[in-house]
Amino acid sequence: MKVGFIGLGNMGQPMASNLRAAGHELAVYNRSREKAEPLRQQGARVADSPADAARGAEVVFSMLADDGAVEGVVFGDTGLLVGLGRGALHVSSSTISVALSERLTEAHGKAGQRYVSAPVFGRPEAAQAKQLWVLAAGAKEDVERCRPLLEAVGRGLTVLGERPSAANVVKLSGNFLIASMTEALGEAFALTRKSGIEPQVFLSLFQSVFARSPIFERYAELIAREQYEPAGFKLRLGLKDVRLVLEAAGAAEVPMPLASLVRDHFLEGVARGMGDKDWAALGALAAERAGLDEPGSK
Amino acid sequence: MKVGFIGLGNMGQPMASNLRAAGHELAVYNRSREKAEPLRQQGARVADSPADAARGAEVVFSMLADDGAVEGVVFGDTGLLVGLGRGALHVSSSTISVALSERLTEAHGKAGQRYVSAPVFGRPEAAQAKQLWVLAAGAKEDVERCRPLLEAVGRGLTVLGERPSAANVVKLSGNFLIASMTEALGEAFALTRKSGIEPQVFLSLFQSVFARSPIFERYAELIAREQYEPAGFKLRLGLKDVRLVLEAAGAAEVPMPLASLVRDHFLEGVARGMGDKDWAALGALAAERAGLDEPGSK
Amino acid sequence: MKVGFIGLGNMGQPMASNLRAAGHELAVYNRSREKAEPLRQQGARVADSPADAARGAEVVFSMLADDGAVEGVVFGDTGLLVGLGRGALHVSSSTISVALSERLTEAHGKAGQRYVSAPVFGRPEAAQAKQLWVLAAGAKEDVERCRPLLEAVGRGLTVLGERPSAANVVKLSGNFLIASMTEALGEAFALTRKSGIEPQVFLSLFQSVFARSPIFERYAELIAREQYEPAGFKLRLGLKDVRLVLEAAGAAEVPMPLASLVRDHFLEGVARGMGDKDWAALGALAAERAGLDEPGSK
Amino acid sequence: MKVGFIGLGNMGQPMASNLRAAGHELAVYNRSREKAEPLRQQGARVADSPADAARGAEVVFSMLADDGAVEGVVFGDTGLLVGLGRGALHVSSSTISVALSERLTEAHGKAGQRYVSAPVFGRPEAAQAKQLWVLAAGAKEDVERCRPLLEAVGRGLTVLGERPSAANVVKLSGNFLIASMTEALGEAFALTRKSGIEPQVFLSLFQSVFARSPIFERYAELIAREQYEPAGFKLRLGLKDVRLVLEAAGAAEVPMPLASLVRDHFLEGVARGMGDKDWAALGALAAERAGLDEPGSK
Repeated sequence: MKVGFIGLGNMGQPMASNLRAAGHELAVYNRSREKAEPLRQQGARVADSPADAARGAEVVFSMLADDGAVEGVVFGDTGLLVGLGRGALHVSSSTISVALSERLTEAHGKAGQRYVSAPVFGRPEAAQAKQLWVLAAGAKEDVERCRPLLEAVGRGLTVLGERPSAANVVKLSGNFLIASMTEALGEAFALTRKSGIEPQVFLSLFQSVFARSPIFERYAELIAREQYEPAGFKLRLGLKDVRLVLEAAGAAEVPMPLASLVRDHFLEGVARGMGDKDWAALGALAAERAGLDEPGSK
Repeated sequence: MKVGFIGLGNMGQPMASNLRAAGHELAVYNRSREKAEPLRQQGARVADSPADAARGAEVVFSMLADDGAVEGVVFGDTGLLVGLGRGALHVSSSTISVALSERLTEAHGKAGQRYVSAPVFGRPEAAQAKQLWVLAAGAKEDVERCRPLLEAVGRGLTVLGERPSAANVVKLSGNFLIASMTEALGEAFALTRKSGIEPQVFLSLFQSVFARSPIFERYAELIAREQYEPAGFKLRLGLKDVRLVLEAAGAAEVPMPLASLVRDHFLEGVARGMGDKDWAALGALAAERAGLDEPGSK
Repeated sequence: MKVGFIGLGNMGQPMASNLRAAGHELAVYNRSREKAEPLRQQGARVADSPADAARGAEVVFSMLADDGAVEGVVFGDTGLLVGLGRGALHVSSSTISVALSERLTEAHGKAGQRYVSAPVFGRPEAAQAKQLWVLAAGAKEDVERCRPLLEAVGRGLTVLGERPSAANVVKLSGNFLIASMTEALGEAFALTRKSGIEPQVFLSLFQSVFARSPIFERYAELIAREQYEPAGFKLRLGLKDVRLVLEAAGAAEVPMPLASLVRDHFLEGVARGMGDKDWAALGALAAERAGLDEPGSK
Repeated sequence: MKVGFIGLGNMGQPMASNLRAAGHELAVYNRSREKAEPLRQQGARVADSPADAARGAEVVFSMLADDGAVEGVVFGDTGLLVGLGRGALHVSSSTISVALSERLTEAHGKAGQRYVSAPVFGRPEAAQAKQLWVLAAGAKEDVERCRPLLEAVGRGLTVLGERPSAANVVKLSGNFLIASMTEALGEAFALTRKSGIEPQVFLSLFQSVFARSPIFERYAELIAREQYEPAGFKLRLGLKDVRLVLEAAGAAEVPMPLASLVRDHFLEGVARGMGDKDWAALGALAAERAGLDEPGSK
């Protein structure tokens, strides 16, 4: 397939390289031209502008740092909107805002072009090793059209329906899960370190018990199914345990704001009659706060 | 070995049963006597009191619901303190407070008895399947003495030094990690559901990408080593992404208090000159809040 | 009246002095005896122990630093419980826990003694100037008995019913309001300072517009009456404004965790259909979280 | 003076009316024309567009609901930018974002026009009674030029320097203080109500002790001066009291997220060696989080 690729940073370079290795004809563009050199050596054409990269291409990928960078290559005199042919497809892999994704959907639509949002999970090493996990959302036929390309850059693909911005919501939610776990780990390491436990020991325990276990998965399942009864572990026991965490942290003088937040939510659950549900019912409270449904209704 | 076991609930029963299966001579006690019946049938002696269960035992386990229950079986006229012989060992597997663990350490010490704190990770099914992960802290020779017993109830053992309460801190920290991840999942499912993404789809993505991946492990390693440079993913990009999460959540009217908390911590990091460190530096900020060290010093 | 006074710190000394000035016969006790000297010179008897201070007294005040100090003077061989006569009254003015207040109620009751909880608002200067505000809770006849004494140390008195610990709840709630306002001020000064506004200017504005205005009072009234309709200022406008605060704070790199918390609560209100109520409906959400009533029911 | 006024809602109408009463020649504009009728009867000219209202005016006020409404009247074919003469002054009293205020500053500057940001504190009743408090920021001569007008609509004026957006930051900070106090009151009423105290009683106490007292003012002064030593009330005692609040709230099953937040900040203060400073040092921690200065440096 004739493919354009815009943005040859840590992520874009290996992705483009994998597309080339899969046999596609490639035109690449990067603001600082020297980053395009390795791909030129692999046989790619080096374009002078985003519009130029899009010339004659069936599909053009973009993989850039943020909203501003994406706006920079899409809009403007030599931008993608100008260069992309009618019916040609822009695959946006950058981690951008839901709002910009919706704006791109509209802008390409008006120009008679197609748009698929396809952000990825994985670091540069994963991109090189073709181990990215790719999300994709957009019109069915568009996703099907670029499927071979998405499969050429990753180890798996999740299709998220016809609204492109859904893929951005999911990508952002995934990064939120990582940041949340990091915060939790930060607070847990602070408590254990200050309680005299070697970080290396707590790390090794985390690796043995949590990191690759089905524990987190089980809670995700309970929340996805809104299945909070019968309780495997009661919410009121969750409250008890987090209280003990905060008691220990108070004695050791370790602030744990995330523990405070979770304690308050457990306490709300108990105050509102959910004490005998599974402690995964934190998910029911989050849904209710969003106006999704009243707790106790499921 | 001659072993006592106090507390035959969902967790205690299978643990006691595994000790019996490993060939140990068992005396068991439970407040409601009928729960002792299955173990009687396996050849255990059914004791009339905690003290009675401790009679002649080299090691006595207790596995109860909370601080109150443990105090109830240890102190008092027919309690463990009265029945346990000089030099005999109390192995406490309940999830109790650090404060009570320290009080037990002292009380047993004064009585010429030994005390090991040995809480476990795992649900009743894991207890039945001998798949618990056991923590242990206490005097070296005491931990060694009960090691075969601890190995008989679980799949792995982490020894946490000579201060018994360290095991309680770690057990509580583990439960805190689970509760935190559950809160994060609850908020993420609320956002994705309200954005029109099927819970089943987000669940399957979580399973594919996060649940058993090395992602969380990598961040735990960075925090354990306080290795925040060079950045794999910069803290200022973490801030950007969590801002986009909150922007999307605001537009969809989904409160995400954990996302707010993480955003504020990232923002503090950037405001204080840590924007180019790895976003795992949330751990550095947590450590500093606890008075452990100043950020930037590592 | 024959009055004992235990605890002659910054607060106790002027309170005792005011009681003496009002003509009462005084026996005082303080752990470090030299602090009793000024009162001895005013004609007070210096007692050797809490029990000794209580000897023959109709009413004994205690004003100490914390739970531990109060336990120290009440319980034990030479404690208040031993020295206080049958029917005599302990007036506890310390800021102590609700739990200890309930324990004291019970202990004095068992000993045939009376107990009134009477914590105070005001700093040492206010105590000296007889400008404290006194809370009182306990049996009606007990509160009436010590009323002249309570009026001798302050400028006002609020009686809070027959359960002594109610006064402690209210005292703690008052300190919580101060701490919360201080946190809010701290964040507001951080934002304005970093935005280039002189602290002195913002202070002077706070003094002119907020500090002594009826603004806060009006919101307290709306919450007390649960009167959230018709809206004076709509909750959705409150959300808008706090979003703008966070937007400005984000641009200036100023973390404002209290603003984040309030934003999340406003957002919950809007998501759950309360956007057109008065923004004081934060109070309805707090009540609901406590299981008091469902929002929208009023 | 020849004055234009755009936006005749609850706030704009009485402000315009007060300007007319002060003898100024008035042209008014409102999207729905019938709201202009009362002012027409007072002798104002009713304009057909924002541009028309600005025709020949020396100063034009705008008082609208939000950013969108302000953009609507300023930009566009019949907007203020088009109608305002060279050297004429736009006084923006709406509560808008800092970003929009900066954009307006630039747009008017490019058009050879002047811009003063002048948001107000006060509700519609205060606007009618000429009791608003007005903020003003902009070039000195511009503020002086409109000073008589600003004084005609309020009881007081605070000038905040030459950067217009500073007034917006301060206005938003003021609304943040109100919202924070409302949240604090909401949580305090939930705790006291659930503890059996009549809301009316707690309200009356709040009125007597807090609402118009110098308490909050004193803390604002300490923070403005960064004067955290010597302590009037030590931070470690603040921690103790908020812990007791959370203990009482936990027992009564009342979640108090703001109390949790303040507790965590006090705990951080103690952990980092600030326990003997005044509890107003919450302000030092907020400043440090913003990268303003290290705690302990003052």
